[in-house]
Amino acid sequence: MKIGCIGLGLIGGSFALSMKRNFSDVQVFGMDKNSEHLQKALTLNIIDQVLEESAWSEMDVVILSIPVDHASLLLQEILDKIHPQALVMDMGSTKGQLCEAVAKNPKRHQFLAAHPIAGTEFSGPEAAFDSLFDHKTMILCEAEHTEVSLLQIAKSLIAPLHMTLKYMGAKAHDKHLAYVSHLSHISSFMLGKTVLDIEKNDRDIFDLAGSGFASTVRLAKSNPVTWTAIFKENQEEVQYALEEYIQNLKAFQKQLETQNYKGIHQQLAEVNDLKPILNGIIKKEENGN
Amino acid sequence: MKIGCIGLGLIGGSFALSMKRNFSDVQVFGMDKNSEHLQKALTLNIIDQVLEESAWSEMDVVILSIPVDHASLLLQEILDKIHPQALVMDMGSTKGQLCEAVAKNPKRHQFLAAHPIAGTEFSGPEAAFDSLFDHKTMILCEAEHTEVSLLQIAKSLIAPLHMTLKYMGAKAHDKHLAYVSHLSHISSFMLGKTVLDIEKNDRDIFDLAGSGFASTVRLAKSNPVTWTAIFKENQEEVQYALEEYIQNLKAFQKQLETQNYKGIHQQLAEVNDLKPILNGIIKKEENGN
Repeated sequence: MKIGCIGLGLIGGSFALSMKRNFSDVQVFGMDKNSEHLQKALTLNIIDQVLEESAWSEMDVVILSIPVDHASLLLQEILDKIHPQALVMDMGSTKGQLCEAVAKNPKRHQFLAAHPIAGTEFSGPEAAFDSLFDHKTMILCEAEHTEVSLLQIAKSLIAPLHMTLKYMGAKAHDKHLAYVSHLSHISSFMLGKTVLDIEKNDRDIFDLAGSGFASTVRLAKSNPVTWTAIFKENQEEVQYALEEYIQNLKAFQKQLETQNYKGIHQQLAEVNDLKPILNGIIKKEENGN
Repeated sequence: MKIGCIGLGLIGGSFALSMKRNFSDVQVFGMDKNSEHLQKALTLNIIDQVLEESAWSEMDVVILSIPVDHASLLLQEILDKIHPQALVMDMGSTKGQLCEAVAKNPKRHQFLAAHPIAGTEFSGPEAAFDSLFDHKTMILCEAEHTEVSLLQIAKSLIAPLHMTLKYMGAKAHDKHLAYVSHLSHISSFMLGKTVLDIEKNDRDIFDLAGSGFASTVRLAKSNPVTWTAIFKENQEEVQYALEEYIQNLKAFQKQLETQNYKGIHQQLAEVNDLKPILNGIIKKEENGN
């Protein structure tokens, strides 16, 4: 089987590696518009060969893992050129605009919109590793528009990764991810900015920061290109989530101003309800199931 | 040497355990206004004996690790009763009001304001462990007001923990901690609240959350009593930090509204400057130095 991976960063690179780990009969072709990344992917044996655009039609499966704001256009070009039995999967973090863009494409049934809930704050092919997706969640959007036999191929490729499959509409996906993922990134980036701004004349003050700060701003290390694209593609839902977050912060600020510590305590205690949920997420991540 | 630990939660309990680990001639007495905590501290061998108020005068060292909004009052009561060669150290997260409260106390020289930059999101005596402080930073505030011989005793107790000592004024401490610690907790608690609010009718949506979300809201598991007290004691500095954070979020929101993605990208890239700093914090935490 010939798999063409377009985009060889953390996600594309890790998917390529996991395919090579699990399937001995797979040949992985790769392309990346960053020539250094392409070279590194070859050197690190993430891919077997460079994928030329002229060879798209020879691929059995094409995996698209590029910044989401460029995915809609490229997906249509890929669909134009692939052979009639090929499957195209994208791995992006937003789905609404992408699914809308190809809704009427005559080859829509050859496309599967997928979003693995997996990642680290690192990026590029050096960050890729073959177990990134193991035991994580894979969201499949509008899977009913994908031809059943091609959906089966996708599932058989994913099967050895032991992922939990979730089926969702593209709009529901974008709404929920705005809260449980995109907003976390904004909160983290802006926390990082606030502390950098105030402490810029006194950098060694970071010696005072402990693991709590490090944990809260970990996502501020994420790739700006990837994340600007996500905020752009999911602008509307991210706006809603951000507005609610700001309103909650302002309400907290008001309680602080009016010295309503009983109210603050009550609010913090309510948020502690997250504990079992968070412990569940962390356990899932640690135990790989 | 008799060490009296008042407050037997994560911090007080861990300090007691580390003293027992490092000094064979130490007897650890403990008290906690939560009788269950006191009983657990005995059962878990965190303390050797219960400390009665009538025995405060027999202690060589008293360690105060209680919610910071009750520390000022209790510290003065303790100072009243200890013998003239005894040392009292507090381990709280805020220092301004506390140091001000005892500034004119005739036994001010017997007090050392200390803040170990160590903790987890867990609380209570069960959360305590003897290596919590190992290789972490210990901030000593206004150490010039502590009698040199007593400061020496404090240092000799801390020495086997291999902590990095930092000397600061109490006000500077509170200002910097507002940014690198207290604000992180607010951002995390309010992020947790925002997501809980929106997802309350659809709890299984948390299956969509990955390690990024878990990391960003980890601090939302923290103890509401401890943290309400910190926000209360450091209200003014926390207000400044929170206002700047909200302003940064609003500026980001404006960029999103006006679709200024170039501006968003630039801002995210600038925050990436945190990378080496964060890597430093994480390395320090992991390697224990």
